[in-house]
Amino acid sequence: MIDLRSDTLTRPTEAMRTAMARAEVGDDVYGEDPTVRALEERVAGLFGHEAALFTPTGSMANVLAVRTVVQPGQEVLCESRAHIVRAELGAHGAYSGITSRTWIHPRGQVDLPVLRDLFAPDMGHYFVPTAAISVENTHNFAGGAVLPLADLRDLREFATAAGAKVHMDGARVWNAHVATGTPLQEYGAVADVLAVCLSKGLGAPVGSLVVGSADAIAESRVWRKRMGGGMRQVGLLAAAGLHALDHHVERLADDHAHARLLAEAAGGDPDAVDTNIVVVDRPDAASYVERAREAGVLVATVGPTAVRLVTHLDVSRADAERAASVLASL
Amino acid sequence: MIDLRSDTLTRPTEAMRTAMARAEVGDDVYGEDPTVRALEERVAGLFGHEAALFTPTGSMANVLAVRTVVQPGQEVLCESRAHIVRAELGAHGAYSGITSRTWIHPRGQVDLPVLRDLFAPDMGHYFVPTAAISVENTHNFAGGAVLPLADLRDLREFATAAGAKVHMDGARVWNAHVATGTPLQEYGAVADVLAVCLSKGLGAPVGSLVVGSADAIAESRVWRKRMGGGMRQVGLLAAAGLHALDHHVERLADDHAHARLLAEAAGGDPDAVDTNIVVVDRPDAASYVERAREAGVLVATVGPTAVRLVTHLDVSRADAERAASVLASL
Amino acid sequence: MIDLRSDTLTRPTEAMRTAMARAEVGDDVYGEDPTVRALEERVAGLFGHEAALFTPTGSMANVLAVRTVVQPGQEVLCESRAHIVRAELGAHGAYSGITSRTWIHPRGQVDLPVLRDLFAPDMGHYFVPTAAISVENTHNFAGGAVLPLADLRDLREFATAAGAKVHMDGARVWNAHVATGTPLQEYGAVADVLAVCLSKGLGAPVGSLVVGSADAIAESRVWRKRMGGGMRQVGLLAAAGLHALDHHVERLADDHAHARLLAEAAGGDPDAVDTNIVVVDRPDAASYVERAREAGVLVATVGPTAVRLVTHLDVSRADAERAASVLASL
Amino acid sequence: MIDLRSDTLTRPTEAMRTAMARAEVGDDVYGEDPTVRALEERVAGLFGHEAALFTPTGSMANVLAVRTVVQPGQEVLCESRAHIVRAELGAHGAYSGITSRTWIHPRGQVDLPVLRDLFAPDMGHYFVPTAAISVENTHNFAGGAVLPLADLRDLREFATAAGAKVHMDGARVWNAHVATGTPLQEYGAVADVLAVCLSKGLGAPVGSLVVGSADAIAESRVWRKRMGGGMRQVGLLAAAGLHALDHHVERLADDHAHARLLAEAAGGDPDAVDTNIVVVDRPDAASYVERAREAGVLVATVGPTAVRLVTHLDVSRADAERAASVLASL
Repeated sequence: MIDLRSDTLTRPTEAMRTAMARAEVGDDVYGEDPTVRALEERVAGLFGHEAALFTPTGSMANVLAVRTVVQPGQEVLCESRAHIVRAELGAHGAYSGITSRTWIHPRGQVDLPVLRDLFAPDMGHYFVPTAAISVENTHNFAGGAVLPLADLRDLREFATAAGAKVHMDGARVWNAHVATGTPLQEYGAVADVLAVCLSKGLGAPVGSLVVGSADAIAESRVWRKRMGGGMRQVGLLAAAGLHALDHHVERLADDHAHARLLAEAAGGDPDAVDTNIVVVDRPDAASYVERAREAGVLVATVGPTAVRLVTHLDVSRADAERAASVLASL
Repeated sequence: MIDLRSDTLTRPTEAMRTAMARAEVGDDVYGEDPTVRALEERVAGLFGHEAALFTPTGSMANVLAVRTVVQPGQEVLCESRAHIVRAELGAHGAYSGITSRTWIHPRGQVDLPVLRDLFAPDMGHYFVPTAAISVENTHNFAGGAVLPLADLRDLREFATAAGAKVHMDGARVWNAHVATGTPLQEYGAVADVLAVCLSKGLGAPVGSLVVGSADAIAESRVWRKRMGGGMRQVGLLAAAGLHALDHHVERLADDHAHARLLAEAAGGDPDAVDTNIVVVDRPDAASYVERAREAGVLVATVGPTAVRLVTHLDVSRADAERAASVLASL
Repeated sequence: MIDLRSDTLTRPTEAMRTAMARAEVGDDVYGEDPTVRALEERVAGLFGHEAALFTPTGSMANVLAVRTVVQPGQEVLCESRAHIVRAELGAHGAYSGITSRTWIHPRGQVDLPVLRDLFAPDMGHYFVPTAAISVENTHNFAGGAVLPLADLRDLREFATAAGAKVHMDGARVWNAHVATGTPLQEYGAVADVLAVCLSKGLGAPVGSLVVGSADAIAESRVWRKRMGGGMRQVGLLAAAGLHALDHHVERLADDHAHARLLAEAAGGDPDAVDTNIVVVDRPDAASYVERAREAGVLVATVGPTAVRLVTHLDVSRADAERAASVLASL
Repeated sequence: MIDLRSDTLTRPTEAMRTAMARAEVGDDVYGEDPTVRALEERVAGLFGHEAALFTPTGSMANVLAVRTVVQPGQEVLCESRAHIVRAELGAHGAYSGITSRTWIHPRGQVDLPVLRDLFAPDMGHYFVPTAAISVENTHNFAGGAVLPLADLRDLREFATAAGAKVHMDGARVWNAHVATGTPLQEYGAVADVLAVCLSKGLGAPVGSLVVGSADAIAESRVWRKRMGGGMRQVGLLAAAGLHALDHHVERLADDHAHARLLAEAAGGDPDAVDTNIVVVDRPDAASYVERAREAGVLVATVGPTAVRLVTHLDVSRADAERAASVLASL
């Protein structure tokens, strides 16, 4: 089986397992795990921020990150298919008590003219103020679309002038970085707080990070404990993340090439594939998934007529070519 | 001063005060207030629903109503300037723990093609399902715009087929009824649950109602108590509501005529005025409000460049004409 | 029927209705209702605090009051049968997200030695700190027991030294005041924030107030709006409260005398009756309630073996004597 | 340094690391990780329950477990120093919206006569019903005290008859099992739902489990995702848990012997030490901790005058003897 359902499915390599087995650890609730500290410092530095915090999942990283910039009773604006409103089981409302409003863009992009209208300044009284705007880069349900740096800069400028913060869901920001050559620090520079993920394209088994100011991260550390995310000898997981940063970033270019190959085979437009995710519109989505499975290729639906294919560390060039051949034949 | 800031500003008439002073009352927490019961039954009947529940405010009515159709972790869809996401201090997130996503329409209308795309079916796993679609009729921040019955019927049909409910924020549904002649029962027929208000156009000092199925209302009664809305001898307030239903519905036609008059005077388009609310786009909104005040007319901003004028029970024909003359001179 | 189920059952007198009918009003969401302002200022003054806020119910007053001194993730300590943990449908957890721990006292009293042990200083890390201690005076489910001023002073001193606040649920603080002669200001002096009620012993149909510092009340005003408690022409209700303060405070002494009479008749100990509430332990509580009802006296259960009798404005001396005679015969 | 601050501090052994490095894994969000499945099935079986769910921390396991038996607006009863109310940052209120009330016992024991009084049956209306009683076995802040099986059986019988559930915080239930010889299934039989921990006495780096009915666990799986606890290739951590169950249970007897040794040395009563935790009352707690540290022994405060010493996998017999000698000399 060639598994294209998600890039969360990767299994740790032997080298990664070895790195984990050798990791120096301590109790991170006491702040005594040297490996997780090293990872947190390294990731903070990559994005040019002061601090970072390890979390068990990308969902928790997003909930904590958004919470640093939006209080209960305030709102976050985001694109209508953003992961934070679509795929985190409503945690931002259910746990953080915040309101969300959305703009709609088929490619998940920033649409500044629309955003200006949507934006709610703090007018006192009983209006809900826009405390933050959230962007997702790359945008998962918009097919791994990259958000151009120029748009992000304009957004940040607008937000700052308007008194709001920017949150970046950077679960796959590594893919944007490799696809465009934009330095990670540039992405860091256009956001007040980010959530980034080690367990998707980077191939670590577990782990994400919140990245932001020292104050925001200190606050997130408390909320992480409250959410039940304060793990103990985390260095074992952090070691996988460090290994991934050393060895699995540049190779994302291969995933991107494979994705274009698959898009073409599946009847999609390869030029619409920015990174490692292909979303193909198929009225027969459910049966398509089933037929692909019978032919040895696992793909997923992300909507009634939307089929998603994701390339990753465990899909080799040969796998991609075989999958393309299968999909082309359906 | 002629006060056009809001139709919430009306003071009870002498006749209404008399009705209140004579009301038969009991402890409504024990279900023993005959006047509030009469009001609840009457309003339920007006909309063709099984039951209704009195609440101290329209905000509480909306929070309770939405909660009957959306659970924590689920989402409600609504237009981007709907009162429920803009003007209730984020209670649906902060207290009910629900997620919201929005479509954008300059007149606050249902946009079914966009809604079909936005709608999230229940796909299990960790996707947030659309449990309800909320419409606001008339739509306050879209200038008191009426939602055409045909659109509402199409929406209900779509929602029902898709397994979702419809919530109507009918704070000013009386205005829609009078402006279009659509029977209230027709509005009731296109919603699973409504919130309607006695203290805006109808001129009662306090009070709104949730309207829906007997089960939904029984559930709301418990949540109302939890929110601190379970008042005691409510009949005094309900009597004002009953009086308003008897005497203040048909006269809303006057408010609508006055609003058209004012729209013209303020440089707006009278044909864009469906009911009693006029929103005029003015880059000089803040100073306009100030100048009007100096000339004896109170108006409000509802956005950095949006001025709102609202007609109501305490604005007579003569008041409207005088205000129009003032505004025309600014 | 003589109704002893609760002092919430009182119906407004003719004089109170007249006061309501004549009340000058405005839109309180805009801060423009002169009567509610007068009531808020008067009640704040009675307790020697800076400000007060009208709320539709005692439950909302308590939720708002506690919230001013306890944040989500912090705790409030209270006696095990306090109204805030027993009879507000869990709102302090469900809406405010706060933790509660309890001490147990058969008369609902402060037990300082036990409290010292229970108290949790702020130790950082992940321990829940005690932010406030809540007392209920008089204590409803402990049979209307008065909390001695000396105990309250000791408590306040302890709390202040320990860095915590004191909340007083003073729904029936008027009864404590009349029963003991303690000035209301003395009760105000031992609490950082109070909730007091107009619709119980004082006989108003609707209304309670949060009483505290100007900052706390300003904050409560926002949270009141979020909870759906921001009503409009509230002066009508406030007028009833002002009338009650003028005419219904001193007469509580009658209720207290009636309660002693009833306690004796119901087989309870009159010396255990501090104010207007009698709780009698009866293994046959349910059938006792039924038999009393058949004999024309309504009483209530507040536990499987606890029967409660409450005297109030609508129970005259003659009523009390007749009820005593009925209860004595059961 | 000999570290007696907590048994959460243990580092994985070489053998455990090897087991982790070899673990077969998959994406647990998709239910495809064979090692975590094996662990969940094994732990469910150990306690005689249908199912179990892996969580990143004991705090999350407790929050999820309590949530399966207590809804927002209902209450859980527990001892006043229970971990769920003292040391989880208020998550049960802040995230689950539930109310807690407490009884007080110096050894953290069940006190059935007091519990019978405290217990709140479901009386409808607005009273908060007791949905569950929570016990902690062993009880951390009561010095690792064991709860006798007979008491737990009586409690379960009472709770079941009263219509309530029992939650056991079994973070250290393994210690109770080894100290008393009570089979784990017997502990499982007296609770509707348990939370058990792999990262304390058992020495795994990360991980706890919720144990209960298949329905409760299915529901917890959704809430775990919402809390951000749905990790991916969890088998790596589960492998440590399986290793710990094979190798680190029986050896807890050594920790218990060491704890008695230390209690004696620290001036405590060894007969009061049931398991691996020693709490000594010292007015000079803070300086005691400091002096011990200077002498090479790390201990912690768990209250202003309470010093806690905990033995664990990384404290050998020789370490314990040396620490005892140091403490005796202070």
